Amino acid sequence: MDAIDLTSRLIRCPSVTPDEGGALVLLEQVLSAAGFACTRVDRGGVSNLFARWGARGANKSFGFNGHTDVVPVGDAAAWTHDPFGAEVVDGVMYGRGATDMKSGVAAFVAAAVDFVTTTPPDGAVVITITGDEEGPSVDGTVALLDWMVSNGEKMSHCLVGEPTCPNEMGEMMKIGRRGSLTAWFTAEGVQGHSAYPHRARNPMSALVKLLARIDRPLDEGTAHFDASTLAITTVDCGNPATNVIPAKGQATVNIRFNDAHSGASLTEWLRGEAAAVEAETGVKIGVRVNISGESFVTAPGAFTELVARSVEAETGRRPVASTSGGTSDARFVKDHCPVVEFGLVGRTMHQVDECVPVAQIAQLQAIYGRILRDYFA
Amino acid sequence: MDAIDLTSRLIRCPSVTPDEGGALVLLEQVLSAAGFACTRVDRGGVSNLFARWGARGANKSFGFNGHTDVVPVGDAAAWTHDPFGAEVVDGVMYGRGATDMKSGVAAFVAAAVDFVTTTPPDGAVVITITGDEEGPSVDGTVALLDWMVSNGEKMSHCLVGEPTCPNEMGEMMKIGRRGSLTAWFTAEGVQGHSAYPHRARNPMSALVKLLARIDRPLDEGTAHFDASTLAITTVDCGNPATNVIPAKGQATVNIRFNDAHSGASLTEWLRGEAAAVEAETGVKIGVRVNISGESFVTAPGAFTELVARSVEAETGRRPVASTSGGTSDARFVKDHCPVVEFGLVGRTMHQVDECVPVAQIAQLQAIYGRILRDYFA
Repeated sequence: MDAIDLTSRLIRCPSVTPDEGGALVLLEQVLSAAGFACTRVDRGGVSNLFARWGARGANKSFGFNGHTDVVPVGDAAAWTHDPFGAEVVDGVMYGRGATDMKSGVAAFVAAAVDFVTTTPPDGAVVITITGDEEGPSVDGTVALLDWMVSNGEKMSHCLVGEPTCPNEMGEMMKIGRRGSLTAWFTAEGVQGHSAYPHRARNPMSALVKLLARIDRPLDEGTAHFDASTLAITTVDCGNPATNVIPAKGQATVNIRFNDAHSGASLTEWLRGEAAAVEAETGVKIGVRVNISGESFVTAPGAFTELVARSVEAETGRRPVASTSGGTSDARFVKDHCPVVEFGLVGRTMHQVDECVPVAQIAQLQAIYGRILRDYFA
Repeated sequence: MDAIDLTSRLIRCPSVTPDEGGALVLLEQVLSAAGFACTRVDRGGVSNLFARWGARGANKSFGFNGHTDVVPVGDAAAWTHDPFGAEVVDGVMYGRGATDMKSGVAAFVAAAVDFVTTTPPDGAVVITITGDEEGPSVDGTVALLDWMVSNGEKMSHCLVGEPTCPNEMGEMMKIGRRGSLTAWFTAEGVQGHSAYPHRARNPMSALVKLLARIDRPLDEGTAHFDASTLAITTVDCGNPATNVIPAKGQATVNIRFNDAHSGASLTEWLRGEAAAVEAETGVKIGVRVNISGESFVTAPGAFTELVARSVEAETGRRPVASTSGGTSDARFVKDHCPVVEFGLVGRTMHQVDECVPVAQIAQLQAIYGRILRDYFA
């Protein structure tokens, strides 16, 4: 099966989150024709596709995970190619989702179809594809995994096909991801005249104290992770009067954290710092926290080595095992089985004129095919 | 002349800045009738009144300064008395300007008229009244002083009749004022993804660093002044995206400073701190400064003692010589002659149901009369 052709057909489906756009319907047809048992696992307005070749609940069950939804086109006039046209110019295919990640989905679907139809394995191949990875991700891969648990479906290992290479094909795989936490601070003081600060309690002064305390290196990195980071994303008050100390202010920080921390430990730390500043200033500080993902790592071992060896065999490059970057649906999959991410070069993802060299799609299909053969060998 | 009656007539003039409202016209009639040479010194849409009894440029020339403009009524429905009605209930007169400062103007005008008509002094009495003290103050007392210089008019000493007593009549006079400076900081960094702070330059992080450095005690006070104060009045960014480090942010601080500093020295300090944070963070920080007044003090001596003695004689209280509070037009007068401020209790100024006990107006008139007699004795 030609993953390049399948990629172009997927790009022509306008599946901007949360629209299915015909992409999952197309994949269900392709997979069903190859003998996969397919089930649409739609939930909360999101379309998702589950497909399995082989026996339900097989002990050896290799999983692929990906998404067909894409981010919006953005400035359509700035595109030099139709974002849903899949035009190929000089060996490069253009379109929204060309790298993130219709090419990846096409590559693992084509590799899986070729594998099960030519060398039927002793086990199962499971494919989970969501229509909401770029959106809230509440009813996407999570819905698929919930449904699998309820229906006795299993994966013994899983590969997420997101783009993972910064510049060159094969240079990086991901064996984990940092966690992500957002904290919203509200400071409520006592309004007053700028000439008499001792009669007021300045919420902005308290927020500055608090932010200055927490805006620092959180650690020096761990065995598999870079250092955790904290970013002040906004501070706001909106007081136009220079002779008035305001009553209220607010600030937001976003933390990307490694396995030296947890969402709970960071929440406790932030609340402690806020309480200390509250005690010092008399300004009441509220803290609201949202943990969008805990950090996780798939410890280097046989599975990661299998993936790395396949990548090296097809590209000549030994991929670095990284945990850098944002979040992905691997953060959900890791609760079910060991998970690794490998995909092509993601440089143009989310950009105008998103594109992929077609040779990379073929190479990715070859890598995924080799992983399947090695896994079931 | 009855200062209480004059106060009520002034309150009935709706002279909300910048409207003259009939207040200066009334005073010009009253003063002219008593032999004062009056000149309307209007400039830039602002009405001002100059009045002199005695010879122009006399060496001994006592000045009174005040304003007839008032701040807006605010929530009119919340007033229990007509804000321009000057109603008297249980010995208390209600109305906008009752304390700030139509009563003060009425008291010194009445005292001056009584003085020059009963015991004509060897010298001059100069009265300057502006219609813009509560507004921009650009074409108010400054216009009067400019006009005086151009026309050979002089004051050897001046008393500003603003309310100066916090709670009890006679407890405080002002012999100077702190300076006031506002600084606007703009921070321009490099936008980026919250997951990769090292690829961005966070303007909010830089502003927090800068504000944390400068938000501290500036001194411990000086011989005649309380400690200088700095207040962060606002910090703003307006970035709603928690996964985005913003490109720009801004902050404002207001400083009230004593004679250990000057507008220039503080500006240099702020620019130095901003430059240090800019060098440390790579975030470009702009600093715009407005100095609305330098600090000044009329050194305690014969003049301040004369005022204090008069207050004590009429009230039984020895007034503290303070430099506390916001700014007043004394900051302009001090460039022309020694200036002291004394007036009644200012507790209800700018508030709903602003009011004054009528007995205080009579007491203030007596104090001002005694000051005039002692000055020319």
